[in-house]
Amino acid sequence: MRRSAFFVSDGTGITAETLGHSMLSRFGEIEWHQQTLPFIQTIDDAHAAVEQINQRCHEDEQKPVVFSTLVRDDLRAVLASCNALVLDLFSVFIGPMEQELGIRSSHQVGRTHAIRDQEAYFVRINAVHFALDNDDGARTRHYDKADIILVGLSRSGKTPTSLYLALQFGLRAANYPFTEDDFDDTVLPKCLMDHRDKLFGLTLTAERLHAIRSERKANSRYASMRQVEDEIRGIEAIFNRYNIPHLNATDLSIEEISTRILAMTGLKRRLQ
Amino acid sequence: MRRSAFFVSDGTGITAETLGHSMLSRFGEIEWHQQTLPFIQTIDDAHAAVEQINQRCHEDEQKPVVFSTLVRDDLRAVLASCNALVLDLFSVFIGPMEQELGIRSSHQVGRTHAIRDQEAYFVRINAVHFALDNDDGARTRHYDKADIILVGLSRSGKTPTSLYLALQFGLRAANYPFTEDDFDDTVLPKCLMDHRDKLFGLTLTAERLHAIRSERKANSRYASMRQVEDEIRGIEAIFNRYNIPHLNATDLSIEEISTRILAMTGLKRRLQ
Repeated sequence: MRRSAFFVSDGTGITAETLGHSMLSRFGEIEWHQQTLPFIQTIDDAHAAVEQINQRCHEDEQKPVVFSTLVRDDLRAVLASCNALVLDLFSVFIGPMEQELGIRSSHQVGRTHAIRDQEAYFVRINAVHFALDNDDGARTRHYDKADIILVGLSRSGKTPTSLYLALQFGLRAANYPFTEDDFDDTVLPKCLMDHRDKLFGLTLTAERLHAIRSERKANSRYASMRQVEDEIRGIEAIFNRYNIPHLNATDLSIEEISTRILAMTGLKRRLQ
Repeated sequence: MRRSAFFVSDGTGITAETLGHSMLSRFGEIEWHQQTLPFIQTIDDAHAAVEQINQRCHEDEQKPVVFSTLVRDDLRAVLASCNALVLDLFSVFIGPMEQELGIRSSHQVGRTHAIRDQEAYFVRINAVHFALDNDDGARTRHYDKADIILVGLSRSGKTPTSLYLALQFGLRAANYPFTEDDFDDTVLPKCLMDHRDKLFGLTLTAERLHAIRSERKANSRYASMRQVEDEIRGIEAIFNRYNIPHLNATDLSIEEISTRILAMTGLKRRLQ
């Protein structure tokens, strides 16, 4: 079964998409044709959006589902006229909130994902550059400034997780790769020993690591089951010896890994 | 005025947070104390969450606002007993959707931000590594594989935007920095000339670029108003001469820059 969904927003559309994806995933047997209509900020924009939605309704011969985060009353009124199931975030939640809080909400065009202030901007940008500069063990001398140091085998997800922690939470995440040479004596490198309380380990099952490395270098020693099993045994010995908190990231997305790390370590985000 | 808000989820909490931030930003005069309670997956977890929320209500002497994306009926029933304004995403939207679609939704514990499939995982990871490998003009020989090549001055936001495009949309974004040497003759470097259709420019006002560079190297020639004005004149001449689409990113967040690029170029995301 195939249906259409639209995400309509006066801003980036990210809130509408996030909300919509969450809802659509509950109807997994439907093949969703998805489209985002961002920056709908004028009456003309709203009419153009309605036209596009109605056109799709006509083609599909079925009503699309529309997730809207429009805030301005006049824009929402135009959208409401379209031939679709319109799920309007604003109208559903703002009423009860105004009542509970006893104040009126702002109906300005949405800037949920706008720059909040100069300071938050720098926290975020500096965290991204910190992650880049301290990726893959490139440098170890700035570990005193790190919020967290991810350790794990090659292709265990350290780099994307570091970048996500930076972009989403403003955290300064370094990462350091363990290679087979590190397992000869089950001793932490000195650069890590000095910052043991910041270490967090990522592991994968041998099957998963084999699959990921094979995608990169098929039929190599690097990707072989024997090699990944040896490396996993080695790194687990180090995690156990030094009591390093760690997570098996097999089947977890970058978002899940990152939020689990916060939950497990109690690390406080620098951006809300 | 100070109030508390909770984001309660059986998964990462990202949907609840995104939704909640969007709503809270409508009540800007309130100072929000925000807390995420992720991975609420058992009845015991739900009771612990309720206890925490009630404790806060007691301390604040006011009801917190709770944004919930819990899906399981039994967990939602426990949460509903807390002493707060509970805004339950699931109950509000799923009913109308089930009616329109004529099918029941899945009430499994939420994995909106879970790995969807092996292929999507690789699209994303490969995009992140592409952005890293092709950051800041480090390499130019893989531009044939790029979806987009961001061009701009130093500290105009190219790197975080490239990474966001990779993580969020799975797009392979390279970026190339223009320096004053590039402006001597207003001619595109050959590596860019060969891929003119992939270029997208980022600019900033002189004041903003001066502020950002000063944060990095205060009182340097690099950060001086005179220098940034010269560079901005130079890059605008190139954008105009070669008809390169571009965006003034002053006051825009990384999310806004990224989604505007998609809207302006018509580039299709590789991940939904």
